[in-house]
Amino acid sequence: MKRLFLFLIFSISFLNRIRAQTDDFQWKQVAPGVWKAVVGAPETISPLGVAGIKPMTEALGKLGSPAFPSLLKESKNGLTDGKVYLRFPLERHEQLFGLGLNFKSVQQRGTIKTLQVDHYAGKDNGRTHAPVPFYVSDKGYGVLINSARYIKIYAGTTVRKDSKNPPPEMDRNSQRNWNPNPYSDAVEVLIPAPGTEIYVFAGKTAMEVVQRYNLYCGGGTLPPKWGLGFTYRTPTLFSDQQIIREVAEFEKKGYPLSFVGLEPGWQSHSYPNSFVWDPTRFPNPKQFLDNLLTKNIRVNLWINPYVSSRSPIFKSIQPYTASHTVWVGEVPDFNTKPARDLFKGLFTEQHINKGVSGYKVDETDGYDQWLWPDVAQFPSGFSAEQVRQTYGLQFQKISSDWFREKNTRTYGLVRASNAGASALPYVLYNDYYNHKDFITALCNSSFIGVLWTPEARSSKTSEEWLRRFQSVCFSPMAMLNAWADGTKPWTFPEVADQVKEVMQLRMQLLPYLYTTFAQYHYEGKPPVRAMNLIDGFTFEVKTNGAVLSSTDNPYAQATRSDIKDQYMFGDYLLVAPFFAGETSRKVVLPQGKWYDFYTGKIAGEGETIVVSQPEPGRIPLFVKDGGIIPMIPPMLHAPLKDQVLPLTVRHYGSIANSWDLYDDDGETFDFEGGAHSWTKLAVNKKADGSLEGTVKASPGNLFHYHAVNWEYMTPRP
Amino acid sequence: MKRLFLFLIFSISFLNRIRAQTDDFQWKQVAPGVWKAVVGAPETISPLGVAGIKPMTEALGKLGSPAFPSLLKESKNGLTDGKVYLRFPLERHEQLFGLGLNFKSVQQRGTIKTLQVDHYAGKDNGRTHAPVPFYVSDKGYGVLINSARYIKIYAGTTVRKDSKNPPPEMDRNSQRNWNPNPYSDAVEVLIPAPGTEIYVFAGKTAMEVVQRYNLYCGGGTLPPKWGLGFTYRTPTLFSDQQIIREVAEFEKKGYPLSFVGLEPGWQSHSYPNSFVWDPTRFPNPKQFLDNLLTKNIRVNLWINPYVSSRSPIFKSIQPYTASHTVWVGEVPDFNTKPARDLFKGLFTEQHINKGVSGYKVDETDGYDQWLWPDVAQFPSGFSAEQVRQTYGLQFQKISSDWFREKNTRTYGLVRASNAGASALPYVLYNDYYNHKDFITALCNSSFIGVLWTPEARSSKTSEEWLRRFQSVCFSPMAMLNAWADGTKPWTFPEVADQVKEVMQLRMQLLPYLYTTFAQYHYEGKPPVRAMNLIDGFTFEVKTNGAVLSSTDNPYAQATRSDIKDQYMFGDYLLVAPFFAGETSRKVVLPQGKWYDFYTGKIAGEGETIVVSQPEPGRIPLFVKDGGIIPMIPPMLHAPLKDQVLPLTVRHYGSIANSWDLYDDDGETFDFEGGAHSWTKLAVNKKADGSLEGTVKASPGNLFHYHAVNWEYMTPRP
Repeated sequence: MKRLFLFLIFSISFLNRIRAQTDDFQWKQVAPGVWKAVVGAPETISPLGVAGIKPMTEALGKLGSPAFPSLLKESKNGLTDGKVYLRFPLERHEQLFGLGLNFKSVQQRGTIKTLQVDHYAGKDNGRTHAPVPFYVSDKGYGVLINSARYIKIYAGTTVRKDSKNPPPEMDRNSQRNWNPNPYSDAVEVLIPAPGTEIYVFAGKTAMEVVQRYNLYCGGGTLPPKWGLGFTYRTPTLFSDQQIIREVAEFEKKGYPLSFVGLEPGWQSHSYPNSFVWDPTRFPNPKQFLDNLLTKNIRVNLWINPYVSSRSPIFKSIQPYTASHTVWVGEVPDFNTKPARDLFKGLFTEQHINKGVSGYKVDETDGYDQWLWPDVAQFPSGFSAEQVRQTYGLQFQKISSDWFREKNTRTYGLVRASNAGASALPYVLYNDYYNHKDFITALCNSSFIGVLWTPEARSSKTSEEWLRRFQSVCFSPMAMLNAWADGTKPWTFPEVADQVKEVMQLRMQLLPYLYTTFAQYHYEGKPPVRAMNLIDGFTFEVKTNGAVLSSTDNPYAQATRSDIKDQYMFGDYLLVAPFFAGETSRKVVLPQGKWYDFYTGKIAGEGETIVVSQPEPGRIPLFVKDGGIIPMIPPMLHAPLKDQVLPLTVRHYGSIANSWDLYDDDGETFDFEGGAHSWTKLAVNKKADGSLEGTVKASPGNLFHYHAVNWEYMTPRP
Repeated sequence: MKRLFLFLIFSISFLNRIRAQTDDFQWKQVAPGVWKAVVGAPETISPLGVAGIKPMTEALGKLGSPAFPSLLKESKNGLTDGKVYLRFPLERHEQLFGLGLNFKSVQQRGTIKTLQVDHYAGKDNGRTHAPVPFYVSDKGYGVLINSARYIKIYAGTTVRKDSKNPPPEMDRNSQRNWNPNPYSDAVEVLIPAPGTEIYVFAGKTAMEVVQRYNLYCGGGTLPPKWGLGFTYRTPTLFSDQQIIREVAEFEKKGYPLSFVGLEPGWQSHSYPNSFVWDPTRFPNPKQFLDNLLTKNIRVNLWINPYVSSRSPIFKSIQPYTASHTVWVGEVPDFNTKPARDLFKGLFTEQHINKGVSGYKVDETDGYDQWLWPDVAQFPSGFSAEQVRQTYGLQFQKISSDWFREKNTRTYGLVRASNAGASALPYVLYNDYYNHKDFITALCNSSFIGVLWTPEARSSKTSEEWLRRFQSVCFSPMAMLNAWADGTKPWTFPEVADQVKEVMQLRMQLLPYLYTTFAQYHYEGKPPVRAMNLIDGFTFEVKTNGAVLSSTDNPYAQATRSDIKDQYMFGDYLLVAPFFAGETSRKVVLPQGKWYDFYTGKIAGEGETIVVSQPEPGRIPLFVKDGGIIPMIPPMLHAPLKDQVLPLTVRHYGSIANSWDLYDDDGETFDFEGGAHSWTKLAVNKKADGSLEGTVKASPGNLFHYHAVNWEYMTPRP
């Protein structure tokens, strides 16, 4: 009855153009520090619904129970032109982050976006692989719009006549400081739907807001240990024997390798896809997979979801596919159970049961022409728009469930995601190949509960090759994608040793990285962290002088400074990549003392430093005072399930500190039932001022290290 | 009752996601060769409605009465996801043109656009100054969607499962000719509205389709003669005396000038706008305007429509403005009569009655941040989206009516337009400043009933300056816009004479140009014409080899050839501009012989030629065999109303031909009542093979030329 009433209200407003009446939100607490409100009649499909989120109630409780953000009490909602209208107030000097996987900018206040799943095309306009409708404020709250529609967001650009904080009227003729972008005191949103759910996440800091968001979405994904090793995607038409030879080559040359990726050529038919092995190139897939597993190498399979007439499921899936095809392949509607079951049956039998470790799910993002159009119809009755916004997310969910049923973790690649993805074991990637922008995407991934890899494919110079490898090794998935180019880590002999060194460093850092991901899972802290999430990072909003140019800047807009080329990887490592062609760069060090990772020497203290590299050297890494970094020897593969390794624990700076090292079996979901350990690595200051490390293991037998060796990196002054 | 029924159907479909049932169109002939169909319940605001089109019934009758295009009989429509769905079939090898003012490409088959009024931002994605929802097929028809919504068009990119002409399924693994863009046999459209009107225009050729479209929209605009002279927009803070000195400088140096444009500084307050003269810089506007008029110079005033609190109409217009401001100015809702009346009153009294000749209507297009948001509400009840799609169009209509009431023609500039604009006396411009793309926009303007100027503002080199001036002088409005830079035609002394020469050539061509615009008005033929509208232009669709590159072309897409850097200006002149940095260029000559404009020598015959200019020379111009070009002496100003001038008529090539020269008073609308003349300029071949020109004037006294001098440019072989 209530639904019918809303339906009538909505219909009348749509056709008769009745002006919106705005209302207050009715917020309802759904977890500590998390509130939900309903506007209009929400649709039955939503990102959080598709992601199947299971809030981490206990962890949310531990985070505390902050009050509802007072600023948001003035928020309004309504219906206008048959669409949901939202208005959230902003304070002066407030900063906003998030709003999808952006590649150019970190700060999002002052931008306008239509959030739409698409291939990123060079502009932060909302069209991106993960158009997550979530923003985080540095005032300590986040807002999530749980709608599977193309949401238009004005993030502090609009000015209402009835604003309580109106900008002054100015005169461009006479006032030199005339502002082309008048002050706006609100985020305004238009959602082309009859209703939606809205979530608010509170927090003392932006980081706490992000933690709460990730924990509400189920906690961040914890990859299997092998997922944090190095991965190599082989040329598309390689046969089993060629791949095995390639793997042997890595081993022989001493380059780490944890899993290989097979590109379209593993299939008998692609694109569109048969989803079955090509009998010529892969006559015995099980044997091939077993062979690789004995070498401690896993296999990931490329797919896109579009079904070929040569696929065994083609006939059965027909009634459950869209009105339109993609590359002449049928588009499964995973909102129907038969489509899900057919995929599960075929993929389990053909791949997972034979030992495949995961998937690379391509082309779920668009480029517009490589997706179904918005006019397409789906058997579930959901619109093309709704399916587009959730397709990549949905494939992540259903495929990760296949592995979960086998109590095996997976870690794959995907081209499209959305809200609620934190717990899903997938890393985003794309075809855009701008190294600098890839780093900005790394920063931005940290606000919105997704992972991103700045994969290496090819390079024009050895310098660029090294620079890309350095970044790749400090990302959620360290990947070389040679599908089209056949490149190898050693393709540029001049830097082959330096590439090997950074790949080895990645492997040495595995205990640190694995714990960093455990923090993602248990505490909601993203593994890669934009500087704006870091305590003690003072973010000065500088606007650079506006210079009028009739051709380049006709409105004399000022430009804004944005720290988007450095980030934290875990609690202690500040990563400041070099880019090809640059011989020096600035690094902004947050408050406190920071030390060079390689030498332990002081690098600076709460200041901006300049790092020089006249010749391509190592990637600049800095460690916070007191930083504790556990390392293992540079192995070629991820450790085996029960392998026990020597551990070196580095300490930087001069202050006492402790850090909890995580461990579990690295492969299964048994950790969820308690089969995991937190081991306290503590460095105390003795009476004589010298440092002493101690290890305090938690009960149980899940600490895979022995012979802990302490390295105090920073000499006493 | 019917409305209620549709309303219920629509509402149910929206909320319950009922799958679309597609129907055939019910076409109804509305003029010879023009049909209309209604889908669903059209909204009460539409581009054609706002433009207030008055079809040229007689001229439409003269064009003939073709049958309904048979291909379109298979078209379908329906409602899906609460939106209008349209499907129009395509034939193999069919080409599509139009779909808004595009800057990069002429052919539009294979593209996807969301047609939205916006500043053009470098991609032909539908966001542009004139997102006219009209496409023209080379198979002899055009389709117009008369909706004021953001229309999504898939122009031959989609593939339905149930297609009658499905593309073959291919295998990227084994087939080298695997096609990343499978063949699509339809245009599909999604309109976020409960209904719309659709028009179909038939024609033997694409040109005839365009003619019919323009004539249905009221016939192309016929500018006053002064509008076709040269115009100079003065630096924004110039006073009346500075402008008068500037005008004298043009006169003294011998550079043509017909009207000057005053930028924001003419107002007492801007932005936002007072719309009244600044008393310091313009103490006596009437005297200033009179003074200029005695020199045969008109004045155009810059405005944007956003109202300052300092404007005399501010208080009265308050109830008729939007919920949001633009640059802190109130946004008038011109869909309300009081807003229209207030503007008419102020503008008539302050400007038009004092002698102002027209307006430059800026910032009606967006850049998104410089327009109201989609969440804004308007007192008329129309949505922000609908108002945005029609705002520039509406201002063109209402302001041109103010001049029409005074029986005075105007010719102005505007940043936004839409369907139905053919008869409106405005030329589009923007801030984008890519010379090549400006020429492509000229080509594309010809398909969609709008005019475009590739204005010159500034240049990095003298070569670029000359090249831009050359293009500007072969466009609908020959303009130098010095508002920010203070440039003059003679700013680069190295090319000052060459700039003067091409400006003079523009003036010499006035009789030809004026007749060309008369053809626009009376016959619907656009003055600037893309090559694809020209008889005998064979358009080879070549796809250049697709080269796979993981970083630049991961889907190995082929690129398409597109002739977009040359065009016809009127019946005979082929314009092939040079661009800075180029010393040679290709020119595609349609069938028949073509001659060099300057020398009369043969240039080629139905072939692609290469033109070289090691040093910057004249703009390459070619004339069709038999071409007749009437010219006057190189005057500094447009001819006065009754001024009689000597006429030189050039003939090119060797064939006999005749051409009708148009004339009228050049200033008023009396021509609509019959006060105009068509004079036949004929060249006959005598028995000895020599050529003889004759002039056959129509009755009346509207032929402002004497002493016709014939020049046979091409010597007999």
